[in-house]
Amino acid sequence: MTQSDTEVAQVTELAKRRGFFFAASTAYGGTAGLYTFGPRGAAVKSNVEDAWRERFTVQEGHFEIESPTIMPEPVFEASGHLDGFDDMLINCPECNTSHRADHLVETATTVEDAESLPAPEVEELVARYEVCCPSCNAGLAGEAIDTFNLMFETEIGPGLGTPGYLRPETAQGIFVEFPRLKEYARNQLPFGVTQIGRAYRNEISPRQSIVRTREFTQAELEHFIDPAGDMPDISPVADVEVSLYPASEQAGETTTYRELTIAEAVKESVIENPWIGYYLGIAHQWYEDIGVDMSRFRFRQHLAGERAHYAADCWDAESEVGGDWIEIAGFAHRGNYDLSKHDAHADDDFSVFVPYDEAKTVEKVIVEPDMSVLGPAFGSLASEISEAIKALAGREPDAFDSDQVTVTVDETEYTIDVADTNFRVETQTKHGEHIIPHVIEPSFGIDRTVYTLLVHAYREDAIDTEDRSYLSLESTMAPTTVGVFPLVSNVPELVDRTEAIVKSLRDAGFSVIQDDSGTIGRRYRRQDEIGTPFCVTVDRESAAEGESGTVTIRERDSAEQVRVPTTELIKQLAGLTEGQTTFSDLRSRYPVIEGE
Amino acid sequence: MTQSDTEVAQVTELAKRRGFFFAASTAYGGTAGLYTFGPRGAAVKSNVEDAWRERFTVQEGHFEIESPTIMPEPVFEASGHLDGFDDMLINCPECNTSHRADHLVETATTVEDAESLPAPEVEELVARYEVCCPSCNAGLAGEAIDTFNLMFETEIGPGLGTPGYLRPETAQGIFVEFPRLKEYARNQLPFGVTQIGRAYRNEISPRQSIVRTREFTQAELEHFIDPAGDMPDISPVADVEVSLYPASEQAGETTTYRELTIAEAVKESVIENPWIGYYLGIAHQWYEDIGVDMSRFRFRQHLAGERAHYAADCWDAESEVGGDWIEIAGFAHRGNYDLSKHDAHADDDFSVFVPYDEAKTVEKVIVEPDMSVLGPAFGSLASEISEAIKALAGREPDAFDSDQVTVTVDETEYTIDVADTNFRVETQTKHGEHIIPHVIEPSFGIDRTVYTLLVHAYREDAIDTEDRSYLSLESTMAPTTVGVFPLVSNVPELVDRTEAIVKSLRDAGFSVIQDDSGTIGRRYRRQDEIGTPFCVTVDRESAAEGESGTVTIRERDSAEQVRVPTTELIKQLAGLTEGQTTFSDLRSRYPVIEGE
Repeated sequence: MTQSDTEVAQVTELAKRRGFFFAASTAYGGTAGLYTFGPRGAAVKSNVEDAWRERFTVQEGHFEIESPTIMPEPVFEASGHLDGFDDMLINCPECNTSHRADHLVETATTVEDAESLPAPEVEELVARYEVCCPSCNAGLAGEAIDTFNLMFETEIGPGLGTPGYLRPETAQGIFVEFPRLKEYARNQLPFGVTQIGRAYRNEISPRQSIVRTREFTQAELEHFIDPAGDMPDISPVADVEVSLYPASEQAGETTTYRELTIAEAVKESVIENPWIGYYLGIAHQWYEDIGVDMSRFRFRQHLAGERAHYAADCWDAESEVGGDWIEIAGFAHRGNYDLSKHDAHADDDFSVFVPYDEAKTVEKVIVEPDMSVLGPAFGSLASEISEAIKALAGREPDAFDSDQVTVTVDETEYTIDVADTNFRVETQTKHGEHIIPHVIEPSFGIDRTVYTLLVHAYREDAIDTEDRSYLSLESTMAPTTVGVFPLVSNVPELVDRTEAIVKSLRDAGFSVIQDDSGTIGRRYRRQDEIGTPFCVTVDRESAAEGESGTVTIRERDSAEQVRVPTTELIKQLAGLTEGQTTFSDLRSRYPVIEGE
Repeated sequence: MTQSDTEVAQVTELAKRRGFFFAASTAYGGTAGLYTFGPRGAAVKSNVEDAWRERFTVQEGHFEIESPTIMPEPVFEASGHLDGFDDMLINCPECNTSHRADHLVETATTVEDAESLPAPEVEELVARYEVCCPSCNAGLAGEAIDTFNLMFETEIGPGLGTPGYLRPETAQGIFVEFPRLKEYARNQLPFGVTQIGRAYRNEISPRQSIVRTREFTQAELEHFIDPAGDMPDISPVADVEVSLYPASEQAGETTTYRELTIAEAVKESVIENPWIGYYLGIAHQWYEDIGVDMSRFRFRQHLAGERAHYAADCWDAESEVGGDWIEIAGFAHRGNYDLSKHDAHADDDFSVFVPYDEAKTVEKVIVEPDMSVLGPAFGSLASEISEAIKALAGREPDAFDSDQVTVTVDETEYTIDVADTNFRVETQTKHGEHIIPHVIEPSFGIDRTVYTLLVHAYREDAIDTEDRSYLSLESTMAPTTVGVFPLVSNVPELVDRTEAIVKSLRDAGFSVIQDDSGTIGRRYRRQDEIGTPFCVTVDRESAAEGESGTVTIRERDSAEQVRVPTTELIKQLAGLTEGQTTFSDLRSRYPVIEGE
């Protein structure tokens, strides 16, 4: 195993042992692709979601909504998921397991993007390269490739019911409610709507732990804009430096990144769309804040063949875990694809009236042939001649400049007095027009973000010659902020004092674990492994002095300890976790304790 | 309509118009029982969830987990949902609509709990009372009643797939992972595990807006206890006064509540189980904190026929909306029903080893008949005789007090020397025993809580003779904390100042709306209707003085305004929203502005 593989294996083992995440329902044999977040993982996930909400909804002034995960069939007829949300399925004739044909071909050949090939071509590749079943090694040549829709289907209501699907992305819950959402935005573009919630994909072969699962959490933002009029103010992120891996660099043998500021990247059109540039800048800052190792992070542009036909530009945020780059967010300029599909399929109006800055004066040709003249003159042909006059007026208004105008019906020419056509040009004032808004979509995978944080935070070192592993999580992301221990658990005064401190810390809003069991060293190791940034130990001295006594605070990463007055505890911990104080500040201010 | 009906109608209309909640996917005709929370409702819902997490998980020191919403079939075979989670379905032969037979019978007759009757009896009631279809009025007599399982079914994986169900309650995601969760709790009872998440019930007839929907959010807490050893410390809630509606009072004509403290109710056995008492006390405080009108709130005990056969005791928290009492939480003592079911069905061990306070010395009878004696003596019967000796030793050890012992095999007596049986009594030390923990389950409906908060907060009054409606929500529950307006929107200095203030408030963590459109009065009305507790207006004076200027703060309920220095704004708003300052404090400290 490489160092990277080891790291992933260690984190996966730690995740299960310490309650971050594990395969669900294993008491009943489990189900591939379904994971449960245990107490530690659910806390980290909740911290990530709160941080995302704060940054991408609250700070940006966007709206957050929550829509059902079950949606009726017509939504997915319109969105294209019912017809097009498929993977290529190949079944082994020997052991009857199912596999993704494109993945098998990519593993067995040098073909890199088999997903974009037509099924017959993939069948041919399977045959030519004698691709075998990864489960039983039987040959798969000659097996048909089926398309398999990745949506989970169900029936809504009793009796025959109506078909419904678990949403494959939270975005559709936003798009489908656009006619209402635009009202809440008082019909003014641009505006953004976010949603954090579960999405579902019935993967043929789920893999890589919580990276590719069948049920996962997305945080999506749909920013609705007028492509003609709305430009973002990128100044807040102009100087953010990002690692860009543009499509143009991905053809070569070596991996070359463009290290640019957002302002430079937009100016040089490395990032074509300034909205995408704006969100890449914010995302970079956000990932850094929550503790992603930015030396193992990049933005990769989609290759032309990779992106949807309607997407004007698309970038992924990618993190490196175990030597692989995994997509943790996508940033797509989706044009008006989504809303125009729903506008065409649904009864409601998905357009927005965009007023002009200044009203425009437009000329409008009006023609109303006088049938009391045309009728007697042309009999049964009058109506056709009238239509020909109207068509001519639209096509060639100058033809009405003379006194008479000539039209052709059934290869015969007819001449009419212009006066009898009631031809005239009127000027009208136009205040704006209806447009289908375009969509900028930053879409984040929450589970993969949690996974990245854990892997990037994993450390090993030795304390007093004893090996330890720990998670160097940011205080804001750690499942628990403070561990509180009585030095020994069989002295009632110590335990009472500990419980009083735990209560005061919980009242102050800290997430606290009290641990009375095992040696103090073992308790530190436990908290290190779940990433608790600070531990407070209550010893005889603390108990003897009561509230006017002192306790020790230990920092996770350095394993150093200082002794602070109990009355100062909440203030100092708040300063440490909110980033106003560093542990070295405390070291210079309070007595340092040697050893654990 | 009664006053109550009006209130519900007004709130439902306001909920749709202002973006609290509305029927989902209506652009495609909608689907009964599926609702979307708009920007305002999602914010309130998120506030309720955070407050619940803070109170019931963090403050109590419990674990929160997040499990998948899709679970495999064996889980529900074990839990009993596959067989028993049914409603009675009757189909109209004329218009082909489906109805809940028990509800129709309850409406048409004086029968109050038709759900608990067997189907044939309900069929008979339909016939006897000539119950009609509520949609087309056709007679339903003679129609068969089917049972309809309320779980949404789906297929997991490609090909034949395996059946899976959307969980009908979040609790099963906790129970099924108990073997792992007990390890995280280091096998020490009691401990509590919580989960907030979606649950699904394929209701035959969803109704009452977001009260009975097909997809909803639960917050559940499973407190695992040793029934023999664990007792709660109810002292933190001993003095909480609650309105109790015990089963014994529900038979009478009039509604009589017992107004007791938790300590009294537990002492008088009105609440039988102290754990239930503890959680009723906490829940009462929590509902009061988040803004439920406690004069429209009660705890109702389940009637004997209403509760599950395994439930030792069960109480509901109920709120009054529109004249109806709706269940917003349930508090059940579920015994060891859930875990013992899974222990029996699954391979894993759902028991916990509970150590005795002091090790017990127990006597153990040991008997090992000497086959080298019995074999030659009894031939082919030796083995049967040996078994008979062992059975006798277990049943009647005193029989071995003499030198010889007699056993009967096939109606013949055989006598053996006790010395050849190796009979002896050994004392053993037993340190504890394995038990299946019991479960105390407080289970909260989040959607119904949001609904209750909105209805209870709805107010109408008149400001300067103009009628207004507003939501008197708690600051901590309101979708937005502060509305910020430039007095007029066409003066750039005012708008710039406003934007600077909005940014500073967002940086300080406030949820802020900026509104530049319409008269100032109209903007206040908008914020009143969504329950924004405070509005800040930036006028020419504010802009002229810049950061050293003043702004006005307006309180929603009183519609009163004070003028405060901009530099004081964040501090004063923080004090107001966190409850350290009241608006009258501000009135006495700063100039009061007359009129809007």
